[in-house]
Amino acid sequence: MTRATALIGVDWGSSNLRVFRMGEGGAVLDRRADGRGASSLKPEQFADVLTEVAADWLAEDLPVLVCGMAGARGRWLEAPYAPCPAGLADIAAYAVRPIDAPEVRILPGVAVWREGCLDDVMRGEETQLLGLDRGFDRVVAPGTHSKWARLDGGRIIDFRTHMTGELFAALSRSPSFLGGEAGTDHEAFEAGVCAGLEDGPLGASLFSARVGMLAGRVPATGLQDYLSGVLIGAEIAGETRDGEPGRIALLGAPGLAERYRTALALAGVEEVIVTDVEAATAAGLWRAWEAMR
Amino acid sequence: MTRATALIGVDWGSSNLRVFRMGEGGAVLDRRADGRGASSLKPEQFADVLTEVAADWLAEDLPVLVCGMAGARGRWLEAPYAPCPAGLADIAAYAVRPIDAPEVRILPGVAVWREGCLDDVMRGEETQLLGLDRGFDRVVAPGTHSKWARLDGGRIIDFRTHMTGELFAALSRSPSFLGGEAGTDHEAFEAGVCAGLEDGPLGASLFSARVGMLAGRVPATGLQDYLSGVLIGAEIAGETRDGEPGRIALLGAPGLAERYRTALALAGVEEVIVTDVEAATAAGLWRAWEAMR
Repeated sequence: MTRATALIGVDWGSSNLRVFRMGEGGAVLDRRADGRGASSLKPEQFADVLTEVAADWLAEDLPVLVCGMAGARGRWLEAPYAPCPAGLADIAAYAVRPIDAPEVRILPGVAVWREGCLDDVMRGEETQLLGLDRGFDRVVAPGTHSKWARLDGGRIIDFRTHMTGELFAALSRSPSFLGGEAGTDHEAFEAGVCAGLEDGPLGASLFSARVGMLAGRVPATGLQDYLSGVLIGAEIAGETRDGEPGRIALLGAPGLAERYRTALALAGVEEVIVTDVEAATAAGLWRAWEAMR
Repeated sequence: MTRATALIGVDWGSSNLRVFRMGEGGAVLDRRADGRGASSLKPEQFADVLTEVAADWLAEDLPVLVCGMAGARGRWLEAPYAPCPAGLADIAAYAVRPIDAPEVRILPGVAVWREGCLDDVMRGEETQLLGLDRGFDRVVAPGTHSKWARLDGGRIIDFRTHMTGELFAALSRSPSFLGGEAGTDHEAFEAGVCAGLEDGPLGASLFSARVGMLAGRVPATGLQDYLSGVLIGAEIAGETRDGEPGRIALLGAPGLAERYRTALALAGVEEVIVTDVEAATAAGLWRAWEAMR
């Protein structure tokens, strides 16, 4: 027996598209993925791509709820950021409807404003964060642009973005770090984390890779892991300057989340739960949809 | 009338070779440059390259003093680092003589050791720093690997390296910073410096470029300048955490030195003298040679 579909949930990231067929209550009944991410599409292409990927599901004339970069400026239709503090009702209220697909609603991102100035933004992660069960003080979503968010009472109170993944991608091709492959030298990773946790100027912490090589402390094959460690360590140091971060949910791909868990443990932060990104995304979409009805 | 040559001075960097014909007292009588930097040469090639570039000068059977990467591991002949505190007599004492060119002496780099561990290194800059007239508390040599050195009584007491130029080169090709050309948008540069001077986690300071773009504060054509500003600002913040740096000599190419002078002024540091790199190098080589005789 097939359970009835209640919502088509869409997570449209920069470089990937994920579509969920969801039953009443938010259960994921089926899923599809496609490589046509939002950053490669023009506004008029989104509706067609979605139809190509999920024509049979869409034929049932169901509501479609989209989160992520489809709502960024210049993509399907800009959904302006909801300001923090932001909960499910807030992001639901900021959703927009593209004219070429009236059954579709696109959720906004969330922004921090400080003293009248836009200070930070996220788009996509807010739906995942708000899909988590409550009881976390912080949610860390590591990645190209890692997010550290404070949650309270089911709302995102504040957050900060660290360009850690983008730094890693750029520096891993730079002369000082050409060596090895990330994920192969655990010891070099931990040494890098410790260097990053010292919270010195990052440009100087990074130079410790070269000094470590010269001194024989960092093997050439461990340079990528050392780099990854320094960057993650520095990110954690920056977020724990003001004291204990409380109970943390880690929301990321398993390998990356595990690196952060290791690094957090080296920083003395042990209250860390690794959570499932897809489940959080689907739950966030469902709950946002409920907040709209 | 040609003044008599007393020393052939050589500054053999990673990517460039500079040769000076020097008279008694260290006056530069003539100079030559070549693109065959030390990082592109095998040990057995150095003597031949030097002969190609300056055969007529070398025919006079004069002493040759080399500083820079020719003495790095795997290059002409490794000249192990002299430990800090290091003055001219110290680097002179650590000079080595390659077997294939007995008239040549290669100066060492200088290293900081902390608690028995190699902590930082320079190679080439020490000769420039020690070639400056006294009276500076700090020497800043901006570049791929910027050096901030403390000087006292004609010796390098301590220093720290920031990978600022390497960070710029890597990040200037990264998605968040593709826009404009460094040196064209002074306002974006200054805005970046201010973001860097806040001394927050660097990965977060860098993300402010994207937020600034979204908010219309940073034009797309100013991204490279903004990036340069954040990195230089963060470097300065890291070096001024513990208070006033004192009287600073800036030792770098004119354009780059001017950027640092601007950024230092924004940090409230006004006692800054821009010095001439070639003159400092030649003076350092001559003084080191005097210390050897």
